[in-house]
This record gives sequence, structure tokens and C-alpha cells, in this order.
Amino acid sequence: MRDVAIVGVGLTRFGERWNSGLKELMAEAGLAALEDASVSSRDVEMLYGGTMASGKFVGQEHTAALMADQLGFSNIPAVRIENACASGGSALRQGYIAVASGIHDVVVVGGVEKMTDVTASEATTALGGAGDQEWELFQGITFPGLYALIAKRHMFEYGTTEEQMASVAVKNHENACKNQFAQFRKSLTVDEVMRSKVVSDPLKLLDCSPISDGAAAVVLAPLETAKKYNDTPIKIMASAQASDTLRLADREKLTELKATKLAAQNAYKQAKVTAKDIDVVEVHDCFTIAEILAMEDLGIYQKGKAAKAIADGETALNGKVSVNTSGGLKGCGHPVGATGVKQAAEIVWQLRGEAKDRQVKDAEIGMTHNVGGSGATAVVHIYKRAD
Amino acid sequence: MRDVAIVGVGLTRFGERWNSGLKELMAEAGLAALEDASVSSRDVEMLYGGTMASGKFVGQEHTAALMADQLGFSNIPAVRIENACASGGSALRQGYIAVASGIHDVVVVGGVEKMTDVTASEATTALGGAGDQEWELFQGITFPGLYALIAKRHMFEYGTTEEQMASVAVKNHENACKNQFAQFRKSLTVDEVMRSKVVSDPLKLLDCSPISDGAAAVVLAPLETAKKYNDTPIKIMASAQASDTLRLADREKLTELKATKLAAQNAYKQAKVTAKDIDVVEVHDCFTIAEILAMEDLGIYQKGKAAKAIADGETALNGKVSVNTSGGLKGCGHPVGATGVKQAAEIVWQLRGEAKDRQVKDAEIGMTHNVGGSGATAVVHIYKRAD
Repeated sequence: MRDVAIVGVGLTRFGERWNSGLKELMAEAGLAALEDASVSSRDVEMLYGGTMASGKFVGQEHTAALMADQLGFSNIPAVRIENACASGGSALRQGYIAVASGIHDVVVVGGVEKMTDVTASEATTALGGAGDQEWELFQGITFPGLYALIAKRHMFEYGTTEEQMASVAVKNHENACKNQFAQFRKSLTVDEVMRSKVVSDPLKLLDCSPISDGAAAVVLAPLETAKKYNDTPIKIMASAQASDTLRLADREKLTELKATKLAAQNAYKQAKVTAKDIDVVEVHDCFTIAEILAMEDLGIYQKGKAAKAIADGETALNGKVSVNTSGGLKGCGHPVGATGVKQAAEIVWQLRGEAKDRQVKDAEIGMTHNVGGSGATAVVHIYKRAD
Repeated sequence: MRDVAIVGVGLTRFGERWNSGLKELMAEAGLAALEDASVSSRDVEMLYGGTMASGKFVGQEHTAALMADQLGFSNIPAVRIENACASGGSALRQGYIAVASGIHDVVVVGGVEKMTDVTASEATTALGGAGDQEWELFQGITFPGLYALIAKRHMFEYGTTEEQMASVAVKNHENACKNQFAQFRKSLTVDEVMRSKVVSDPLKLLDCSPISDGAAAVVLAPLETAKKYNDTPIKIMASAQASDTLRLADREKLTELKATKLAAQNAYKQAKVTAKDIDVVEVHDCFTIAEILAMEDLGIYQKGKAAKAIADGETALNGKVSVNTSGGLKGCGHPVGATGVKQAAEIVWQLRGEAKDRQVKDAEIGMTHNVGGSGATAVVHIYKRAD
């Protein structure tokens, strides 16, 4: 196995992209990544594309082949990865394996979702397919409901408050204000979150990530030749993934995502670092409670300690650890298939020192954490600048 | 890169499985494959699951994690692959890479589709997502229409007749009669095919593969330790994949699938064999014309020569080359995500000498050919018995 680097990244603006379909989003992000890597479409040897529910959103499956077609790649293998909201992170891991194994040199990993062509109710139903359709969605529980159960139990066990959860949204919107690609470039107060409409008690509208259109892409290459493409290649130090039961009801505990814990443990081992070494991390904040869980399950805080730390500002930009500098899913938006790839792009910019107004000072080691469903899939990557 | 073997295979009966949902189908095939390989669910290190349109068919995405959950695998990475009707073959190739690269030892590749819970019209629309939704399906052309265009042009250029196409269905039903897993264990005559209702001229109902429920699974392991699991491991000599434009209208030619040609050339090179060396092959006969194209694009016959050869019986069981001994997509059924994995299972049985009434005499080298859409993805694998 050889070392792998990210040599190019590209993003579309996330949000309600009325004038762009799936293809335009793919092309926008893909071409930006190729340009960033100084790679021509002829040089790309393989494509992995993450998309969750394009069949239900726009009637289109077979999206990786479509992306390869759209980007002018020449008859290369193209593989769509679907792991719910962890489709992007899972695609990145497959791309990593393809390069690390020596099978391919230049691999593009894309992620895309076009969600706003359906009603919010249709979108919520489509997203419900990330859980157990027969035993959860069909019985009437959607994702805000599943995460509300988690939040209630976390409040009961650890005294976590609604205001602390709201502070996650406040922080992430603050970061999103500094990100040109973000859906919501608008500050929030805890009070505004608290006064927003209840979606599923205790989660309110502003505790929930939005429905978004968007795409992201990264270019991978062997570390040893990475400087051919980019002066500041970012090494992938670890790539780890774990799974858990689809049904929340089958879990031992409601207050942790076991898949996150296992993937993180494996990633730290591969990278030979600990949670303390992480300077900047993009975590999967599909709901505010999810960011609290992530901070604990990734080992950055002890169980039950993250909510207060976040409310105290420890995870703000240039705090003890900078979390979701992109604005996260909450502030930057959550086009589900794109999210895991966007997280990697944000960390690459941070480690290159190109994150502008939201740059984390002296960021050396970064991490991404992408979750599918209510935790049936978790993917963790760790990165550092290659010297 | 190390050699990879298939050490276990499992299949459900294909057809209208009213009493089995997605989960039951997954479990039935998966457990059969584990038993065949003498592998316990605890030994499995990774799962790749091929499913095409489960979101549209049954509202369920995230199907690989569901499969891992359903089979009692312990928090392993699970990745769903969606490449339209080539989802199964593409999943097999990803499993191959995971083992060949040394990342994992025991990998399960599953494929499943539950298609009969929706109307035929809904299913046809869902399957239309394998082509270009905006420029094909939305304009009114479905897959029978796309393959009818191919058939018309093939007839025009090479004098291929409707009776020759019908002979593909007759042969495949003949083989399906000998396969306990097949959807249609019923002989057909050319006359019956010719008299069946026109779906899209020149394709008639009996030129088309059916809508099916079903699942398939195989267990992969490094060749060097394969005999731990099974006395007759089957070596994967080659694994190759290529892509092409999604839109039929963008192709240079209508009468060939370029992705098949490229994948086959690459596979022959990897395996160090030629088309002449293949004893038994499962090809992607979603429509009868597709089998004719496959025989030509795989290099088994020259362009324009396959139709007559098939009608003359050269590709019947124990003919010059035995094609679609399982019954193919036409006779065995076509639960889209399962098909590519089922093809591998059939070749494994043939090379082990376990294919019973449909056994090809002295079968030494086998091949599978799995197509997505109208040829935007093609996957080719070559196999032989390990000594």
C-alpha cells in the first residue's frame, strides 16, 4: 500500500440552485477540482461518485457514469457509491483504496445531490430510506424524529440542554458567514434557534441541516508523484469506516454512534495520532445533537462533556479545536451525496492555508467525519500537509 | 496485488417473490454463500452490495449497511454500489480490488433487487434512470425503446432478423428449464416469441428480460488461503470495467457497445487468454439483441456474425461456446442489482462441475459480462478453477 494525497478540490455553491441540474452541478465541481490539480480529463483513470437518492430526487440513477460522461473522461471505470448521507465519505475511501493499492494513479472522487426539485415532504421520505424503511420510516418516524430520540436520551443522561444544542447551530452559522460556498451566510443567536418552530421535540427548525443542491470533487494521486499536480498536496493519513444496525431500536445505547467510535479508533491507529492532535475537523452535524455526539464519539471530549464545551466556545474558529469551519451541514448546507467530499475539500483548504477569513491558525492535522442514516455507516479520514 | 478466488456462492430463486422483501432476499442469498464457503458471519471483513433502484422500488437506500446488519456482520465497512444493471458486476470488481490489494481477506459481494412491489410502469420508469433522465427518459424513450433502436440499426447493417433474435430467447429459456433458481422454467419456440406482443418494434415481449425479485452473493478470499474455505476455489483471472456516454445518441455507433469492447480487451490481457479460450460465458441479455451485441463485442464472433451462429445453435449448452447456461437475464430473470453477482455464481458452479443438468463438459475457463444502461457501464470478469 502506498501513500495517497489529495491534489485538487472543487466545490459548487451549496443551496437552492434553481438554474442547475445534477449534470451542471457535477460539471461545476468536477472541472474546478481538475483545474485545481492541473489535471486534464484525459489523465483521470477512475471515478467514484457519491450520490444518495438521485433516483427519488430527479429520476436519475447510474450517476457516476453520467459524471464521467459529463466531465469528458475517456471510457474509464466509474462507480457510484450510495451509503446514505455517508455516500461522499464512502466514495472517498474507495478512491483512497484504488490509489493506495496501486491499481490507479489519478482518481477523481465526486459527490452530488440535487434535492430541491421535490417537495420537502418528498425529500424527507426519500431521506428516510437511509434508515430501516420497514421498521422506521413506514411506521411514521423520519430522521428528525430519530435524532430527537437521541437528543432526549442525551439530555436525560447527561443534562444536555436545548440551549447547548442551539449553540452548535450558532457556531456553524458564524463559520458559514465566512464561506463563499455556504447556503446560509447569516448569523444566528441561541434565542433565534430556541424560538424557531419545533420539528420534532426537542429539535427545532434551526437545529436541523437544510435540504440543499450541491456538488464537490477531489482529485487523488500517489503521494510520491503528487507535486506534479499541486504544490501543496495533502496526505491522507488514515481512511476508516464502520457500520452498525440500521434500526436505532437495535442499538445498545442511544447516546453514542458505535460506528463513529470504531471508525475513529481505527483511523487514529492508522494515522498514529490521538484525538488531541486534531487541529481542525469537519463533523457530521445533520442535527445539532449529532455534532455533540460526534465530538464525544471521536474522543475529542468525554461522553457528556461536549455540549458545555461547545456552548463555551471551545470549538469555535481558532478555539481549542476548530469544528466545522465550513459551516458544517447546518450552515454550509447538506446536499447529502456531496457532503462527505465537501468535508475533505474544506480540510484541504485549511491545511493548505487557503481558507481565507475562516483559516485556522497553524492547522497541521485535520479530520473529517461523515455519517449515514442514524449511524449505520460512519467514515473517518485524517489528513496532514505533505512536506 | 495478490490473486483472488471465489470460495462461496449463494442464490435465491429469481421471480415474483411475494413473500420475501429486500431483507429476506438478502439473508437467503447471503447465508447460502456463507455456508457454501464455510465462513461464519464473524469472519467477514467487508461487504459490497449491488442494488440499483431500491429507493424507487421499496423506499430503501443504504442497502449495503442493511445487508451487513441483516447477515449479522460485526460493524464492518459496507458499501453499496449502484451502476444501474451493472451494479452487481461493479460490486464484484470492488470486492476483487479490496482482496487483491491486501486490505481485506474475506469479503462478501451481494446483489439484490425487489422489483415487483411497484407497477410495471413504475418499474420501467425507475429503470429508465439507468439512461439519461433528461435527454432520454423524460423525452419518452424507455429501455425497450433504446434497445429497439439498436436492433433496427443492427438489422439494417448486418441483415439480422427478428427470428434470429427470437432464437436467443428460445436458447435461454431452454437453459432456464434446467436451473432451479430460474424465473421461467418453460420452453419457448421461435414462433411463440414472434407472436408475442410488440413492446417496441422490433422487440416483442419475449425478446425482453422480465421484472424480477432476487438476490445473489459470493464470498471472496485470497487465492493462497482459499482452500481453507472451499475445496474448489475459483480464481478470478481478470476484472475489468469501462464506461461510455449515457446517451445512446452520443455514441459513434449504435451497433456496438464500446464499453464492452474495452472491458473485454482489458480482461483478456489481464487473464492472458483470448475469446477462443472461453468455454462458458454469462452475457447481459437484457434484450435478445443485447446478447447478439455481446457475443460480437466480446470478440467471440465478428461483428454481424453472431445472430446466425446463435440461431444455428453454436452457443447452446455444450455448443461451440455455452452462453447463458443459467438462462441469462431472459430466462433466469433480472433482479437488476443481483444479476452481475448471479452471473459469477453460475460460472463458479460450471467451473466446479456442480451445474447438474446444465453442466458444460470440461468447462475450464468462464467469463461474465454485465452491462449498465444502454452500455454506459460494462464489467467483464474471467475465471478458472484453481489447481
